[in-house]
Amino acid sequence: MGNIFGNRFTVTTFGESHGAAIGAVVDNCPARLPLSADDIQPQLDRRRPGQSDLTTPRRESDLVELLSGVENGLTLGGPIALLLRNTDQRPRDYSQPVAAPRPSHADFTYQAKYGIMAASGGGRASARETAARVAAGAVAEKFLAHCHKTRIIAWVSAVGDVSGPDLTEQALTRREVDAQAVRCPDPDTARRMQEAIRQAAGNGDSVGGIITCVCRDVPAGWGDPVFDKLSALLAHGMFSIPAVKGLEIGAGFAATRLRGSQHNDRFISRDGRLRTATNRSGGIQGGISNGEPIILRVAFKPTATIACPQQTAAYDGTEITLAPGGRHDPCVLPRAVPVVEAMAALALADAALSHVAPCPDLPTQK
Amino acid sequence: MGNIFGNRFTVTTFGESHGAAIGAVVDNCPARLPLSADDIQPQLDRRRPGQSDLTTPRRESDLVELLSGVENGLTLGGPIALLLRNTDQRPRDYSQPVAAPRPSHADFTYQAKYGIMAASGGGRASARETAARVAAGAVAEKFLAHCHKTRIIAWVSAVGDVSGPDLTEQALTRREVDAQAVRCPDPDTARRMQEAIRQAAGNGDSVGGIITCVCRDVPAGWGDPVFDKLSALLAHGMFSIPAVKGLEIGAGFAATRLRGSQHNDRFISRDGRLRTATNRSGGIQGGISNGEPIILRVAFKPTATIACPQQTAAYDGTEITLAPGGRHDPCVLPRAVPVVEAMAALALADAALSHVAPCPDLPTQK
Amino acid sequence: MGNIFGNRFTVTTFGESHGAAIGAVVDNCPARLPLSADDIQPQLDRRRPGQSDLTTPRRESDLVELLSGVENGLTLGGPIALLLRNTDQRPRDYSQPVAAPRPSHADFTYQAKYGIMAASGGGRASARETAARVAAGAVAEKFLAHCHKTRIIAWVSAVGDVSGPDLTEQALTRREVDAQAVRCPDPDTARRMQEAIRQAAGNGDSVGGIITCVCRDVPAGWGDPVFDKLSALLAHGMFSIPAVKGLEIGAGFAATRLRGSQHNDRFISRDGRLRTATNRSGGIQGGISNGEPIILRVAFKPTATIACPQQTAAYDGTEITLAPGGRHDPCVLPRAVPVVEAMAALALADAALSHVAPCPDLPTQK
Amino acid sequence: MGNIFGNRFTVTTFGESHGAAIGAVVDNCPARLPLSADDIQPQLDRRRPGQSDLTTPRRESDLVELLSGVENGLTLGGPIALLLRNTDQRPRDYSQPVAAPRPSHADFTYQAKYGIMAASGGGRASARETAARVAAGAVAEKFLAHCHKTRIIAWVSAVGDVSGPDLTEQALTRREVDAQAVRCPDPDTARRMQEAIRQAAGNGDSVGGIITCVCRDVPAGWGDPVFDKLSALLAHGMFSIPAVKGLEIGAGFAATRLRGSQHNDRFISRDGRLRTATNRSGGIQGGISNGEPIILRVAFKPTATIACPQQTAAYDGTEITLAPGGRHDPCVLPRAVPVVEAMAALALADAALSHVAPCPDLPTQK
Repeated sequence: MGNIFGNRFTVTTFGESHGAAIGAVVDNCPARLPLSADDIQPQLDRRRPGQSDLTTPRRESDLVELLSGVENGLTLGGPIALLLRNTDQRPRDYSQPVAAPRPSHADFTYQAKYGIMAASGGGRASARETAARVAAGAVAEKFLAHCHKTRIIAWVSAVGDVSGPDLTEQALTRREVDAQAVRCPDPDTARRMQEAIRQAAGNGDSVGGIITCVCRDVPAGWGDPVFDKLSALLAHGMFSIPAVKGLEIGAGFAATRLRGSQHNDRFISRDGRLRTATNRSGGIQGGISNGEPIILRVAFKPTATIACPQQTAAYDGTEITLAPGGRHDPCVLPRAVPVVEAMAALALADAALSHVAPCPDLPTQK
Repeated sequence: MGNIFGNRFTVTTFGESHGAAIGAVVDNCPARLPLSADDIQPQLDRRRPGQSDLTTPRRESDLVELLSGVENGLTLGGPIALLLRNTDQRPRDYSQPVAAPRPSHADFTYQAKYGIMAASGGGRASARETAARVAAGAVAEKFLAHCHKTRIIAWVSAVGDVSGPDLTEQALTRREVDAQAVRCPDPDTARRMQEAIRQAAGNGDSVGGIITCVCRDVPAGWGDPVFDKLSALLAHGMFSIPAVKGLEIGAGFAATRLRGSQHNDRFISRDGRLRTATNRSGGIQGGISNGEPIILRVAFKPTATIACPQQTAAYDGTEITLAPGGRHDPCVLPRAVPVVEAMAALALADAALSHVAPCPDLPTQK
Repeated sequence: MGNIFGNRFTVTTFGESHGAAIGAVVDNCPARLPLSADDIQPQLDRRRPGQSDLTTPRRESDLVELLSGVENGLTLGGPIALLLRNTDQRPRDYSQPVAAPRPSHADFTYQAKYGIMAASGGGRASARETAARVAAGAVAEKFLAHCHKTRIIAWVSAVGDVSGPDLTEQALTRREVDAQAVRCPDPDTARRMQEAIRQAAGNGDSVGGIITCVCRDVPAGWGDPVFDKLSALLAHGMFSIPAVKGLEIGAGFAATRLRGSQHNDRFISRDGRLRTATNRSGGIQGGISNGEPIILRVAFKPTATIACPQQTAAYDGTEITLAPGGRHDPCVLPRAVPVVEAMAALALADAALSHVAPCPDLPTQK
Repeated sequence: MGNIFGNRFTVTTFGESHGAAIGAVVDNCPARLPLSADDIQPQLDRRRPGQSDLTTPRRESDLVELLSGVENGLTLGGPIALLLRNTDQRPRDYSQPVAAPRPSHADFTYQAKYGIMAASGGGRASARETAARVAAGAVAEKFLAHCHKTRIIAWVSAVGDVSGPDLTEQALTRREVDAQAVRCPDPDTARRMQEAIRQAAGNGDSVGGIITCVCRDVPAGWGDPVFDKLSALLAHGMFSIPAVKGLEIGAGFAATRLRGSQHNDRFISRDGRLRTATNRSGGIQGGISNGEPIILRVAFKPTATIACPQQTAAYDGTEITLAPGGRHDPCVLPRAVPVVEAMAALALADAALSHVAPCPDLPTQK
């Protein structure tokens, strides 16, 4: 079921990077949710290539078409189909067989799995697929905001060796994040990040980094016990994003170096309800949301596509030197920000609908 | 579906920490797999409490009973039910209502979700539930070993501030891991870890740490594209383990500080097939196994249960000081090693059965 | 996923007919439902063998043990494990290989699928497995009755050629059904049915029949559109019962001989809400419940196990004559009544929890 | 999950009857299957409105567009998206609120479930949705034919009171079925059926009927035990088709009137393998295919839309007389033939991929 995410609020994505179109079908979104393309297009615009000199020059307008599920600005309760036509696809030349798998791409593994490869090196493995998730994620975000007032925001917190101050306790807006092309809202850090990206790009190289994501106003009680902990659903979603190699929730790896007495979040009473004085748990305890902000840190490896020559082996075993061209990002992080937000939204929306409320206290009927 | 893991090779666990029994039902395990309790008991023995002075003194024999699915040493293709009776349960006194949620336990969130709590503070949230996973994981391991020669091994690689050399390239055995009570196979590091645990325990405190897990001889081609990447399935499994707050696959967070030219795993030809010269991808590329060892690093926070007094708030908002007793581990890491192995095995077995082979090249029939 | 039923309110059954035990794990049952063994045992007693001379003499007390999920008479929200020990199992003699598949049993197909057979001819294919469903179904019934006041009742409406008057509009009770050993509440019809069964049994033969099931007070709005229509979920459940070969909902096959103007259920206003004047739809329109009684008719073929000699072929192709012994029912219908009720309850409980409520009309937040 | 069918070979459909488009996404279809629009269009043409005077005059070309998953005539292993633009949609006038639910349509139940209705009375409940299934089913059929040589054929076996001879043992072709506009391959019966349809249509009325479906060369061993019996998967699929109210597999309801000695299918040896001398089981025993033809009889109620006036109640409870116009079929049966074939194909393809092969007999590794 590799192309379906979620058990209740589900999304199915489809489409190859260089085929006719990509798209998504969102199922089980509640009826009567106010929704239009205007709720979706802004996130697609943030993910779109060609936004700055930090990103790939591929040109895709990525205008979303709502094929179904919405009438007169309200969802109908049926599946919401979202279509994005590919306009700048450039399938590779078929007459030339592919001699060698590109290092750290999906070429080798897709060939091993399917025995066939899509016309471009990317196919389903291309990061282009994430545009469909972003469209679906925007629907999930609208549902979360409308029905639960939940808010999700992500930003670039590290690029290569460059990182900045902890901003998780600030109430950042997407406008502040987008004020910097690199999508790190701290201007000084952003400047150093952009420098690092340009330097790598100048060498025909690429850099990785970290995206931080905070989900606020998640009601206490989401997430199922044991296998479908909210942390597990979020982890499933984050590790399904191309290039992700690590995830921390709350204190993450730093928690391993703390003692219990240092890590425990003691309760306090505030505004008539229990809150935690600290939030090292990152909003999830025992796999279930506790009402505090959910805090994620997502590690992206550097883009595998680089312009410098690479020594490698061809499918027939002979050594060759690859000097890949293609149009790619020296750093995917700025464009991955809405992708992280989308997967967080999809996981949370799934948890929202998966929650089973307790029985009311009634005189038993039987 | 919080108590079912997997889409194809599935496990359902049940049972509260202080109820009559816990157990697991494994579904879709292939028929004709040689299997007996002897394949399962050793991993349960490694997880069992009371193995050394590093662990909780709760006494559970954890002898597994195979209720179904196996006859004369072979699986029948039907569900395999595994039962573990609780023998040392001590439900709390009902006459005393619980005044306050314990900090960083699941008390608060379970109450928010279910409106009811099990007789002990643990219930389904207790780490005791993981015994059922270990039993099911041993079945998955047997399937992987028998049908695919896949081998899984985990060990403690960090406790608090103490960590040792990188052992991922060594062909370690479980015997070597178990030679140290703390389950770090490097004797010097193990000694320092045990010291750290005893020191924390002496203060009534707890420590966290990291478990490293390596899966060898995973065939190339496992994992589904997009949402059910092998990395995503493994992440789902690992983050479903109590106390897990972080995960790295391959180079993990360190990858974020490398350039693409440094991180890419170039191909080489070895023994007639393509291998990678390095393994920064950790055995997974484009979400699909590439035949190299899969390498995971799993971060565990320190146990929430501590013996030192904690200032916190009661459900009614008043401030109180908790001095929890109970029987718990100052460090869960040594006993969590077979749990990590179990979740890796369950995720891999699910990926194995989820793989859809390409059509054979036949003259088309239609 | 052959041993799991339902997407939300799920049940997993396990156990071979002649193994140590059979059982069920119910997942996602809402917390705080009043539940004890007393809610479950009566339905098991109705399914138990040896109730009258119409049924198999196998002796099973079928006392249910609740292993988990319930404390102090309330569900906890976790999985409810139900265990039934086999006490009168008689595995076949292993030293004698099975020469021939029994006609119209599952012997041949299980061998084709699994390449192995359980110790008795039955294994998972035995009707004994349905005891686990009945236990799980009783939990579903309790949930439906407590939270939705939904009531389910089934009875034997035909045995072989014998059938009686249409009783679907009468408010029958289980007591009235059970007043007749054959579980047809019309005494005259019941008498003729019992005669037919005894006649067949006297010839070493078996008979089939029809069970009618009515589900009252099902709220309007259950069932999902398109593939998971309420009718489809019920059909899935009914056709999963051993020996079922046909199903009608509402007017069923008779509807095929009516014109639209005769079949349509016109609306009327009664007690302040819309009802239908007739109920040829059987309580389901467009796949969704309309609040009228749901009416099912389930066709059971005659038991395959008969005592008269049968000419057939052995696995090696040679012709042989089988004269099977074993302990079986000449007519499964009386004992299948609670099984039909259980599957109806499980399908309805799943539909209840699968229902996604529309968004409330709120000022949009985004 | 109302819009997704299947656990392994899955299809998601989307689209309202009078929206922009309808479509389907097929997931998990094996890679390297030869596939093009030419495999899909013929079945769509058979389902298309306006084929004869027996069907609705709505004009839809229903030309399928393959958006993804196929390149150069071979499947890639990724999701196959199929798009059908609506060209003759006529949404109802919004300024006029709908006063009354149409009798035996989904109007009342959709309103109860979603609190909103699509622009036409149909929306997702319209039979137009089945075009998407037919497209997806054609992909499933191609897979079954190519990889397993399985063949599926359906025809109209009854219309109202008119039925013909049993044709299940004849090797019918779709050409023979399509030779009659009513899709009953027996010319004399077809003539009487068409007369019955024209007579009903002349009265502004509608008629129901029965479709028989035979699946040949289904390998023995498909279908999972217990809940996902092959019969249960097929029943789930058939009862998900609009207007279906009954299903028989094999001897069906007639089996209830037979004795075991009459119903049992004894084995014989033919061409070196075991076959059954008769096929009252309809190709499925113990829920698993036995290699004999699978035989289904599907009951369709008469179309709810009729042109004669109907006395009914409005939403506000007042009595009114409806005289519905709209463009509908007096008898859906002829166009439902490819829909039944599609659902049979989707259920069988799902069973094919769900099958778990036994472990090979290897020396155990552990």
